[in-house]
Amino acid sequence: MVYPNGKMNEKKVFKDPVHKYVHVDDQVIWDLIGTAEFQRLRRVKQLGTTFFTFHGAEHSRFNHSLGVYEIIRRMIDNVFDGRPAWNTEDRLLCLCAALLHDVGHGPFSHSFEKVFHLDHEHFTQRIILGDTEINQVLREVDREFPKKVAEVIAKTSDNKLAISMISSQIDADRMDYLLRDAYFTGVTYGNFDMERILRVMRPHGDQVVIKYSGMHAVEHYIMSRYQMYWQVYFHPVTRSAEVILTKILHRAKALHKQYYSFRHQPVHFYSLFEDEVTIEDYLKLDENIMYYYFQVWQEEEDAILSDLCRRFVNRNLFKYVDFTEKYHGLNNWMELSSLCKKAGIDPDYYLVVDSTSDLPYDFYRAGEEEERLPIMLLMPNGELRELSRESSIVEAITGKKRMDQKLFYPYDTLYEDGRKGKVKEKIISILEGKG
Amino acid sequence: MVYPNGKMNEKKVFKDPVHKYVHVDDQVIWDLIGTAEFQRLRRVKQLGTTFFTFHGAEHSRFNHSLGVYEIIRRMIDNVFDGRPAWNTEDRLLCLCAALLHDVGHGPFSHSFEKVFHLDHEHFTQRIILGDTEINQVLREVDREFPKKVAEVIAKTSDNKLAISMISSQIDADRMDYLLRDAYFTGVTYGNFDMERILRVMRPHGDQVVIKYSGMHAVEHYIMSRYQMYWQVYFHPVTRSAEVILTKILHRAKALHKQYYSFRHQPVHFYSLFEDEVTIEDYLKLDENIMYYYFQVWQEEEDAILSDLCRRFVNRNLFKYVDFTEKYHGLNNWMELSSLCKKAGIDPDYYLVVDSTSDLPYDFYRAGEEEERLPIMLLMPNGELRELSRESSIVEAITGKKRMDQKLFYPYDTLYEDGRKGKVKEKIISILEGKG
Amino acid sequence: MVYPNGKMNEKKVFKDPVHKYVHVDDQVIWDLIGTAEFQRLRRVKQLGTTFFTFHGAEHSRFNHSLGVYEIIRRMIDNVFDGRPAWNTEDRLLCLCAALLHDVGHGPFSHSFEKVFHLDHEHFTQRIILGDTEINQVLREVDREFPKKVAEVIAKTSDNKLAISMISSQIDADRMDYLLRDAYFTGVTYGNFDMERILRVMRPHGDQVVIKYSGMHAVEHYIMSRYQMYWQVYFHPVTRSAEVILTKILHRAKALHKQYYSFRHQPVHFYSLFEDEVTIEDYLKLDENIMYYYFQVWQEEEDAILSDLCRRFVNRNLFKYVDFTEKYHGLNNWMELSSLCKKAGIDPDYYLVVDSTSDLPYDFYRAGEEEERLPIMLLMPNGELRELSRESSIVEAITGKKRMDQKLFYPYDTLYEDGRKGKVKEKIISILEGKG
Amino acid sequence: MVYPNGKMNEKKVFKDPVHKYVHVDDQVIWDLIGTAEFQRLRRVKQLGTTFFTFHGAEHSRFNHSLGVYEIIRRMIDNVFDGRPAWNTEDRLLCLCAALLHDVGHGPFSHSFEKVFHLDHEHFTQRIILGDTEINQVLREVDREFPKKVAEVIAKTSDNKLAISMISSQIDADRMDYLLRDAYFTGVTYGNFDMERILRVMRPHGDQVVIKYSGMHAVEHYIMSRYQMYWQVYFHPVTRSAEVILTKILHRAKALHKQYYSFRHQPVHFYSLFEDEVTIEDYLKLDENIMYYYFQVWQEEEDAILSDLCRRFVNRNLFKYVDFTEKYHGLNNWMELSSLCKKAGIDPDYYLVVDSTSDLPYDFYRAGEEEERLPIMLLMPNGELRELSRESSIVEAITGKKRMDQKLFYPYDTLYEDGRKGKVKEKIISILEGKG
Repeated sequence: MVYPNGKMNEKKVFKDPVHKYVHVDDQVIWDLIGTAEFQRLRRVKQLGTTFFTFHGAEHSRFNHSLGVYEIIRRMIDNVFDGRPAWNTEDRLLCLCAALLHDVGHGPFSHSFEKVFHLDHEHFTQRIILGDTEINQVLREVDREFPKKVAEVIAKTSDNKLAISMISSQIDADRMDYLLRDAYFTGVTYGNFDMERILRVMRPHGDQVVIKYSGMHAVEHYIMSRYQMYWQVYFHPVTRSAEVILTKILHRAKALHKQYYSFRHQPVHFYSLFEDEVTIEDYLKLDENIMYYYFQVWQEEEDAILSDLCRRFVNRNLFKYVDFTEKYHGLNNWMELSSLCKKAGIDPDYYLVVDSTSDLPYDFYRAGEEEERLPIMLLMPNGELRELSRESSIVEAITGKKRMDQKLFYPYDTLYEDGRKGKVKEKIISILEGKG
Repeated sequence: MVYPNGKMNEKKVFKDPVHKYVHVDDQVIWDLIGTAEFQRLRRVKQLGTTFFTFHGAEHSRFNHSLGVYEIIRRMIDNVFDGRPAWNTEDRLLCLCAALLHDVGHGPFSHSFEKVFHLDHEHFTQRIILGDTEINQVLREVDREFPKKVAEVIAKTSDNKLAISMISSQIDADRMDYLLRDAYFTGVTYGNFDMERILRVMRPHGDQVVIKYSGMHAVEHYIMSRYQMYWQVYFHPVTRSAEVILTKILHRAKALHKQYYSFRHQPVHFYSLFEDEVTIEDYLKLDENIMYYYFQVWQEEEDAILSDLCRRFVNRNLFKYVDFTEKYHGLNNWMELSSLCKKAGIDPDYYLVVDSTSDLPYDFYRAGEEEERLPIMLLMPNGELRELSRESSIVEAITGKKRMDQKLFYPYDTLYEDGRKGKVKEKIISILEGKG
Repeated sequence: MVYPNGKMNEKKVFKDPVHKYVHVDDQVIWDLIGTAEFQRLRRVKQLGTTFFTFHGAEHSRFNHSLGVYEIIRRMIDNVFDGRPAWNTEDRLLCLCAALLHDVGHGPFSHSFEKVFHLDHEHFTQRIILGDTEINQVLREVDREFPKKVAEVIAKTSDNKLAISMISSQIDADRMDYLLRDAYFTGVTYGNFDMERILRVMRPHGDQVVIKYSGMHAVEHYIMSRYQMYWQVYFHPVTRSAEVILTKILHRAKALHKQYYSFRHQPVHFYSLFEDEVTIEDYLKLDENIMYYYFQVWQEEEDAILSDLCRRFVNRNLFKYVDFTEKYHGLNNWMELSSLCKKAGIDPDYYLVVDSTSDLPYDFYRAGEEEERLPIMLLMPNGELRELSRESSIVEAITGKKRMDQKLFYPYDTLYEDGRKGKVKEKIISILEGKG
Repeated sequence: MVYPNGKMNEKKVFKDPVHKYVHVDDQVIWDLIGTAEFQRLRRVKQLGTTFFTFHGAEHSRFNHSLGVYEIIRRMIDNVFDGRPAWNTEDRLLCLCAALLHDVGHGPFSHSFEKVFHLDHEHFTQRIILGDTEINQVLREVDREFPKKVAEVIAKTSDNKLAISMISSQIDADRMDYLLRDAYFTGVTYGNFDMERILRVMRPHGDQVVIKYSGMHAVEHYIMSRYQMYWQVYFHPVTRSAEVILTKILHRAKALHKQYYSFRHQPVHFYSLFEDEVTIEDYLKLDENIMYYYFQVWQEEEDAILSDLCRRFVNRNLFKYVDFTEKYHGLNNWMELSSLCKKAGIDPDYYLVVDSTSDLPYDFYRAGEEEERLPIMLLMPNGELRELSRESSIVEAITGKKRMDQKLFYPYDTLYEDGRKGKVKEKIISILEGKG
């Protein structure tokens, strides 16, 4: 058994645009990267449909996973330098958990999970613990090692310090995705001084804390996250694409339930439609496969499915209006809905309210959910203080939930020239707030 | 007819990591970007299989096409500022040609074209001139406009100046891809000072020339290209992936010719196998579709097809050795080949020589091919001088064809522990130059 | 008279690390840059003593002044594109005011002005209106032109729009210095997306406003400023150098008043000591000259002057403690002071309290001072709204004055080994908060 | 004695725009940085008069010296990782030599040394070995340590490996200045992938060699140097400033020899004029002091000295023409010279030929000078090969000396309107190549 002392003969590096290089010198890491399950992450985009809004955002979860690994590697070098308690296995545990933390993500994760009631974290566990190449590699370290890695990712491990490095309010995961998503989208909001943060991190009992002198760097990081959420992750054009994607999956499932005869059998979706997904089925699905179906389904007879697929593939998205009380109270909503039906537009698929709280919003809110570890500052006198008590800027945005509700609808269908009748005009006047 | 004077009510911008922003204020450009054929470029990677080597290189041709358009837009602003001869239509012609110059690229272009004897330039013409959304948009400008755009791209237009801006040794195409590929791979070699080059460009008769004072910036650009070719584009790991890809397509075609019964019918490939590709068929193919087949073909009964697909999908690539006279002369080659057969390894699919001259190498060589417009310097006294006559560095690399031949083979199959017999040992000793 | 239509035959450019290039195509701008008074700005650092803390911060006000000019030039191109009301002279007025807005800065401005009761804004006016090369150039445009430029800088001009471009809460001055100081110090805090801000600016009556869609970019800019102030501009090490500098100037002036006989006569300071500074005297002073005196004064007989100069020149700065009620109330202060005297340490020069409100703090506080133009957002419905009413982040930091008081003292003198007696020990115990 | 095992309690970092951070954890390094002699480097610009051409180039040798130190620190970490032979003292020796290698540089080194026949390398030796603070710090390590450090810098040490790290064709010195000068000037030519070069360096016997796989990165570095020399270091505007500077120093010395009575006695220059410079005198001189004299000398009675000083201070530089046989053969030269005299222009000061071979040109030329260590590639088979034998690009520029001769003259004096007589017209016609 070559692990865990199995250093490679020659260090390997990956050229990475965000961290310059990703360094690998443990054989187990190298082997994990080579598994089929890890390579699959190349076929799942880090930001799902965001590339429809920011065309640069075509990077995969493979990218991000290497990045999180690299940050943890550097954290260990910086933070644990010379601490004997942090032995070889703890190091390896942390590196593996970092590398694999997202391995269970499905294609277009957000919509996918919502429609099929799945949870990528659950699949991450199954991939690590099940009959997979990843499991085989991890078992070479130690028979218990897969379980240990899975526990760190699931936050049930006794090694709280490892958990805090990978999943806390200022962890390697968030640091990598902010920098990486900023790089690939081209926005500057996500830039913060990670070098400095790595230098002011300290292990302190069960968690990683930040030296007080680094508070401003952490403020900057928090503000970067805030900006990225509202500027990039919650961008309404991206949400429009997600809305369409969700409706495609809903429609396909509904048709399946109705024994609709598909021209192109949704073979890869059967187990999803039946809620009986095996690991093997799950791993076969990726964004290429999904896209294949969206493309061929453009030729389905079902008008809704084919229209939605055409929209997604050709980026002919829905438009949106702010969905506020004033314009769209319940009565208007019901009227809108019935008017749409009259106009031959199915409101279940073409009138969609989306609010950002549906999205993976994990903006900093101290103390609200138990699992959220607050960021602690290590004061010069040795005390620990929670960040928002020291930083007035962080305090200002702590716990302030920001909502955004939008109504998405097919502008082109409504405004199609020539064919616009009275019913459509009424719909338009309500949408434009004149109703 | 809204075009060509149809400026948009509000300028649109795309956030672009390379040029910061891509600006659109012509309605025709906006509409072209919205066509199904242009959106398809999102599903074709700019660098094919390079992402297996440089994981950041997941960017699409959609990205690059916008970038070329933006450079041309800036070139016109800089270079033609205040020149009345450059009228509105010439401007639009140039912008459209820039945007559409790559629209005919197929999935994994290089291997794809080689196996199926196709030519993306030919398809670019057909897409612009055929029954497509792009053609419809262009016709709104003028009935002859699609033809004019196509001629600029095909380099048969009378507007030599437009041709020289888009396809010469220092054109918007090359400038964008060098900067963009450098950005996404993370290598620094491709960086040069485009701002300066744009400032020293001058239209001069039928071509764009460079003011002498900008010679060093051009040298730097030429050197960047040289570096990018050898460091990125010709990287042997990428070529290994291309080799496997080529062999998959060959195998599928061969099986089809032999009436092999596919579990997963290669519906999308039929017209390719039969050499009767319509525009409609062609446009249905993209890298998602290709990848779909590679994934499902892992389950084909044919051992070669399924093995090659597994290799490609899971990045289990071939290893390589320099294929030089000394080690691999004809006799050795024939011996190798027959040894492989003995060992049950089909040399047609598993012993592949690839030389970079097979790759799209268009490194600067003055005067060698007629179509290559040399870069001309505008001297202070008004004379024109060809670049390599002024620059000793450029002279040094002008016309020096550099070859690289490698032999690719399945290392893992040969070295599989336990099962290695005498035949394999002999093969290995030849590959390692000991034979 | 060549101005104001005097475009240059050939555009000139300056290579600038922040804006890539600074473009000049007006002869008057070129000539202003060539004047002795403007060239003098090369000998005044943009950030005074900050280079003692951030060694990269050695850039001059010459740099910054070109940068502000360039931003205004781009603002005009972006914002006023195609607005005939913005005629040639207004454009030139704005460019000149931008270029010259800091021309009255003295060496190490902050301390210098404090000790000698001077005001750089006053000198900017005198340089523009007095008998200078700058005045001569400006008069070539129009006899009234120097006055007009001076009025824009003094904010007394009728051209409120020009004033708002150069001196408001989001003006070219602040945008340049944040980006530039971030670049030269190497910190990342000062980066924000200026390109986007320039694109969302709109002239609206008397001021420049920001389109609502750009609110997040403005938030990011405001946060960048906040960070730069606390991370860079108010850094205690820089303030320590300022404290010493102030004390050197005080000491020299005091000695002069006492008819102390300098070995090196402070010829350049006479008029300052006598409060009778002419423009000619003022312009002769720059940081090289000041440094010359500090270097030669190391050899003065007066122990305080020579010690302080040695400290400044060799960066042997004072240490500091937070100066809070708890540790340093009035009684302690008086005790400290008298203990120092006993120990032979003059508290007037060696015990210095500095609070950041002494520093050029102009952090965003809406409505507090009349001259502060608030940042107005142009809402989609055409309304104007003050920024902090829309942005919860900006609201959070609006008007929150943050104070920082520190006590600076000569650590080395107190801790000098061997010679530490009871008195020094007592001083130390008070400083360390044990007294 | 705290050294050499004296690690600091807390690592210190300097924020550096080029390397992000400079890390210090050895007390001796910290103490060296704090010496008066090292702090003096803040008052000597890295690129002398280049800031007249590239206004960003105001950075000091202090900056660069820290950068070289940091690169060596990283080199040791990368290259010598785990090599016991490289003991603690060798490490410290290398770090100190790196930090101090430029400590002997005088103000505006190039012109200064030429006029006064000085050599900064000689003064570096004297500062390290003489009665200085630096010497005192080094002696704390070991009595012989100053000598050892000096020998590494002088290239006479037995530790050839250390020498090759600091002074070879690809050393820490060159790598830092190329990156740093590119950063501060804002040109992109000097960027190369230092990270990669550091990773492919290997100690091999007496020198550092480069793994063959890194050849392209080295090519890129060599090309960057080539570009920086011709684009930045040899820029004719910079040379014009150097010419004036040289003539000022010549004039002042000549006047001194003639017992001219200076209004402002050149006290700091006496020992230079008399060729009897002590270390103490030398260290008192820096660019602030020099500038002080240039500024006050503007008021000297001697017309040449005051005019040249005015030109330098106000950047009223000489213009230039290419000085080629064709236009400026010997006869023309003598005629020019005598015409100038007639026109009242002293040719000794106002007609200056400068050729770049006068400048510190150390472009890569294998084998030409004994001291130039060629760059050796470590081939896969263990052989060493000289770089230019493997790289056709490097070969192309190896040994090709490129000359540039220019004639500098006071354009404004000759073209002054109104007063231009026949003699001046004749001079002009020769300069413009019409004579």
